[in-house]
Amino acid sequence: MTQTLQRQPRLLSIEGGEGAGKSTVLSALREALLADGFDVVSTREPGGTPLAERIRELLLGGSGEPVHAETELLLMFASRAQHVREVVLPALHRGAWVISDRFTDSSYAYQGAGRGLDEDFIATLERRVVGIEPGLTLLLDLGVAHGRERTRGRDLLGGGTPDRIERERDSFFERVREGFLTRAAQHPDRFRVIDASPDAASVAAAALAALVAYRETLR
Amino acid sequence: MTQTLQRQPRLLSIEGGEGAGKSTVLSALREALLADGFDVVSTREPGGTPLAERIRELLLGGSGEPVHAETELLLMFASRAQHVREVVLPALHRGAWVISDRFTDSSYAYQGAGRGLDEDFIATLERRVVGIEPGLTLLLDLGVAHGRERTRGRDLLGGGTPDRIERERDSFFERVREGFLTRAAQHPDRFRVIDASPDAASVAAAALAALVAYRETLR
Ligand SMILES: Nc1ncnc2c1ncn2[C@@H]1O[C@H](COP(=O)(O)OP(=O)(O)OP(=O)(O)O)[C@@H](O)[C@H]1O
Ligand SMILES: Nc1ncnc2c1ncn2[C@@H]1O[C@H](COP(=O)(O)OP(=O)(O)OP(=O)(O)O)[C@@H](O)[C@H]1O
Ligand SMILES: [Mg+2]
Ligand SMILES: [Mg+2]
Repeated sequence: MTQTLQRQPRLLSIEGGEGAGKSTVLSALREALLADGFDVVSTREPGGTPLAERIRELLLGGSGEPVHAETELLLMFASRAQHVREVVLPALHRGAWVISDRFTDSSYAYQGAGRGLDEDFIATLERRVVGIEPGLTLLLDLGVAHGRERTRGRDLLGGGTPDRIERERDSFFERVREGFLTRAAQHPDRFRVIDASPDAASVAAAALAALVAYRETLR
Repeated sequence: MTQTLQRQPRLLSIEGGEGAGKSTVLSALREALLADGFDVVSTREPGGTPLAERIRELLLGGSGEPVHAETELLLMFASRAQHVREVVLPALHRGAWVISDRFTDSSYAYQGAGRGLDEDFIATLERRVVGIEPGLTLLLDLGVAHGRERTRGRDLLGGGTPDRIERERDSFFERVREGFLTRAAQHPDRFRVIDASPDAASVAAAALAALVAYRETLR
């Protein structure tokens, strides 16, 4: 297994824990790229294709049957295998920018650091099944309690209820947060860590500044 | 990755192509073990738990979106991860016999030989996610055209329609058949190859004889 990951300059991923503001930042980046006249595809994981969205339902639904960590990991990568081949690569090949709300780093953080699955095995799946990595990954870093407050506000408004993973305890999300920070430290060329605790406009400004700086490096 | 597979003496798998007679043989083995007073769990793959059966629906449903080979492989192993932990191991631990209509060898035959995915990667998934192998595997070997005739007969009676994988062309099923025979040749201690072309009573008799001989070795 000697394949290396192909870095994709126009693929951006936004990572972070629950309620960190990923979806909010994604919209800001998308608007900025659209305003500059680019073709932009925004997408998310798990999901992004009809089949991958059905896998997402199995992952997050919570039917009473315990979902074992290995099952969760393989479902995440099954969804990602489909998403990469059906959405991400076709869009990149036609010249679009692709912004994904979560990508492979979330599996290292949630199924690796969070669930305790072996990182080498995750890396094997990444090489064998994904084969690509983002040019830029924005990690929105936020305290667990702070993120919970934000999603609580949103769920109360929208009438949503927490999904199977959102119902995990704080110690799980603390490991996830550390897992993301470890990934960022291991891949400093690709990651930019953004303090997600200020107001939404400030976080968006920091994310946009990171994008501008990144685009400079592409010239 | 140095884990080896744990051989499970009371786990039997029945393998073979479409319409080879797996379900028919499974019933015969089950009745024989029940008649001898054993606790017997019969199960199938993909499937075997409610979540694994929902994964099976995604695998076989065919929604119009192409299912990529890697997605198919990971969904198969996600279903198997769940099946092993929720059904197979608990039954073995309480002393039951478990007979599975397909098990990991089907992934080597269908996703490996059939779809062309790398055998080493399948072996990694097997070690990491499954961890066990049957004590006895009966391979029902049958010509592809002959198996098609049998399922056609059954589908006409039952009003069934072929699923996404059953709709593959003959060259695919020829590779699957060869893949199974190769697996059997590589694991002669565990496999018994049974000519599945005679009438059902004769095939069942051969399968029962293989079970009797196998049980002798366990004493
Ligand atoms: N910087 C911020 N300050 C305060 N509230 C914010 C900020 N960013 C987002 N929010 C709000 O917090 C909630 C969560 O934000 P958002 O949905 O963008 O997070 P997320 O990371 O996508 O969450 P999830 O993990 O649930 O997908 C939303 O109601 C959003 O409007
Ligand atoms: N030895 C046999 N001779 C003739 N017909 C058989 C024989 N064994 C099974 N059949 C019939 O052939 C059809 C296919 O058998 P069966 O369903 O057991 O195969 P299978 O391997 O389980 O098929 P599938 O791959 O579709 O699950 C059934 O209608 C069954 O009654
Ligand atoms: Mg979101
Ligand atoms: Mg059958």
